[in-house]
Amino acid sequence: MTAAIISIGDELLIGQVINTNAAFISRQLGLAGVDVRRVVTVADELDQILHALEEEFSRHDLTVVTGGLGPTHDDITRTAMCRFFRTDLVRNPVVRRHIEQWLESRGRSWNDAAENQTMVPRGAIIMPNRVGTAPGEIFEESGKLCAVMPGVPYEMEAMVTESLLPFLRKRGTGGVVVHRTLRTTGIAESVLAERLGDLDQLLQGTRLAFLPSPSGVRLRITLVGTDAKECEESVRSVEARIRAKVEKFIFGTDEEDLETVVGRILEERHMTVSVAESCTGGLIAHLLTNVPGSSRYFERGVVAYSNLAKTHILSVPESDLRAHGAVSSRVAEAMADGIRRLSDASIGISTTGIAGPSGGTKEKPVGLVWIGYADKSTVFSREFRFGNDRLRTKERAAYAALELMRRHVLGIT
Amino acid sequence: MTAAIISIGDELLIGQVINTNAAFISRQLGLAGVDVRRVVTVADELDQILHALEEEFSRHDLTVVTGGLGPTHDDITRTAMCRFFRTDLVRNPVVRRHIEQWLESRGRSWNDAAENQTMVPRGAIIMPNRVGTAPGEIFEESGKLCAVMPGVPYEMEAMVTESLLPFLRKRGTGGVVVHRTLRTTGIAESVLAERLGDLDQLLQGTRLAFLPSPSGVRLRITLVGTDAKECEESVRSVEARIRAKVEKFIFGTDEEDLETVVGRILEERHMTVSVAESCTGGLIAHLLTNVPGSSRYFERGVVAYSNLAKTHILSVPESDLRAHGAVSSRVAEAMADGIRRLSDASIGISTTGIAGPSGGTKEKPVGLVWIGYADKSTVFSREFRFGNDRLRTKERAAYAALELMRRHVLGIT
Repeated sequence: MTAAIISIGDELLIGQVINTNAAFISRQLGLAGVDVRRVVTVADELDQILHALEEEFSRHDLTVVTGGLGPTHDDITRTAMCRFFRTDLVRNPVVRRHIEQWLESRGRSWNDAAENQTMVPRGAIIMPNRVGTAPGEIFEESGKLCAVMPGVPYEMEAMVTESLLPFLRKRGTGGVVVHRTLRTTGIAESVLAERLGDLDQLLQGTRLAFLPSPSGVRLRITLVGTDAKECEESVRSVEARIRAKVEKFIFGTDEEDLETVVGRILEERHMTVSVAESCTGGLIAHLLTNVPGSSRYFERGVVAYSNLAKTHILSVPESDLRAHGAVSSRVAEAMADGIRRLSDASIGISTTGIAGPSGGTKEKPVGLVWIGYADKSTVFSREFRFGNDRLRTKERAAYAALELMRRHVLGIT
Repeated sequence: MTAAIISIGDELLIGQVINTNAAFISRQLGLAGVDVRRVVTVADELDQILHALEEEFSRHDLTVVTGGLGPTHDDITRTAMCRFFRTDLVRNPVVRRHIEQWLESRGRSWNDAAENQTMVPRGAIIMPNRVGTAPGEIFEESGKLCAVMPGVPYEMEAMVTESLLPFLRKRGTGGVVVHRTLRTTGIAESVLAERLGDLDQLLQGTRLAFLPSPSGVRLRITLVGTDAKECEESVRSVEARIRAKVEKFIFGTDEEDLETVVGRILEERHMTVSVAESCTGGLIAHLLTNVPGSSRYFERGVVAYSNLAKTHILSVPESDLRAHGAVSSRVAEAMADGIRRLSDASIGISTTGIAGPSGGTKEKPVGLVWIGYADKSTVFSREFRFGNDRLRTKERAAYAALELMRRHVLGIT
């Protein structure tokens, strides 16, 4: 089963609102074996909506329309649907009762907008709106389906999960789509491609996408088929072949973040970590503490921006700062060791670098970062070059520090 | 000038990546007076891309294509563009030099992927990629334009700002759109709407959008017209009327972040700040240090997640922790005062709260946050309730702490 999504709303076209709805619907349909082929965003205008329906409805087995079902004047999706499917509006007593109860439970009185929402297209299947007032609808014509839902994200999400997916599963979608994402870090997209070598041989019919992000490149394997078990097996064997080539760069799978993976590794080993950050400015601590339960292994962080803070809290020797400068291997190591001793954590991690845009020299250019690591048996540091974008350098340095810890703890060299 | 955006990428269609690129491009084109009419997302497949180009290119003055320009095999946009505009690839020495320098500055060697990226469509205008390797292109045919850019967000963003917009401004887009955004924080959208009262009277022909974000609600005033000066004047007078009603909640305008505004306020007054964070986990330090030059006023940060860290580095009395618990007014104040004294900064800021998802009780539910403030003459704290989403609570608490500092320093009550 193939599908198109039509997202309706001026707020999407002027970039005021990001189209998260389409991504949610795509993910959910994908899990149900429906292959989303196109997403089209159009304005709250009757001719634009009709034009999009004409283009998409006949081409796909399913067309999902969201937005423009509310009570305000710019919501004209319902009118467009009636026009497109040559039907009219009828009052629906079930919808009416739901809206009555909805308003009553909120102490609000009946109004014109509520009255208006009790009218639904004749002949459509109604999808109730558990968390709002505007109902959704499913139209069927010549074996093709069109589902219409509100644009308010949580209303749409509840409707997809509670009505649309069960409806589709009952009819059968005739296909399965199996995805597997391997998350890499510390390796550029082009180097990764080179290491993987001949892709046709590697993939044997599956598809592979390279998806770069600040934390690293995700490798997504996809296979569309009819037998779920067979597809799973093929994808697993491709995964195994990829792992054989680039295993050490793969920190997790699917939706696992690096900070979550690192946290799990520490927790399993009953280890704790403290961080001493200069150029990352608190980002490593922020990432680590984004993970629920991180208080079990994250002991503390210090953002030592000034030299005074480095000597004062972290006991970095003033002589090191003078002889090597704040951005140096020696200072990175002294910071990592200092925070570890101060906090009595298993591991100390540090960053010191030149985030920019100013402060660079020929020897120490903007983007230069030293990352330090210390535990009871070792102290070391590594040099990185992250380019000249301040935020990007902070992000890349923070992820590099987490990855350096992951590899050292796991003994990956 | 009207435009369509074609976003290319399987990752968008399966919902793995949310299409933030289209929103960014729409906003930027809007500011340049270009009216985006449609956004179409298609798969990394040659026929899909060509089909979308055929549908969109002839209908709009400008078609913007993003995605699929990287060096790996799934990137077939360049092939599609050559096919659509009946041209072929030629080696470009300027692009080659840029990629050479790029690789060199990162200590990487020349490879096939790099070689591949030096080839650009003959006859196209090249848009350099300052923060990556794949260049962008602008095609022109029968008075219509097509701009092609990489899908990596920061590469595309730099290219839009530095090449595409200047190009469009030079050609002229035939209209003016004047926007003015007032950035508020610490007030809910509905309360803001209530305070503004009758919008028709307030706006007099301009449009007003309420844009909620983690840092607060942005109020965007928009006016479309032909005379730039007249439009500017109308928008300014609407701004003055809005300010008269909600001035104290407005911390900045347009793209000014709260962290940038707070930094400027501190720098102008020769003040410094240190932060002691518990529940925000380093996010306040991260936000403050995102601002170039923040080392002039940001002294240091401590992420005191454990009670030990609170007593140890920040000198929070153990008796306060025992009597009131870590999440309390007393501890917030002791933390703020402790970090200020420790670092000899003008101001100390602290957060302590229950970010969740677990750890809440009836008296101290998930989402409860105390924010502390200390300077030489005063120490105080404020209680906040931020709901049960961990990341959202961290963000809202961090911005509330910055805003509390802004208002206190400026004497706004």
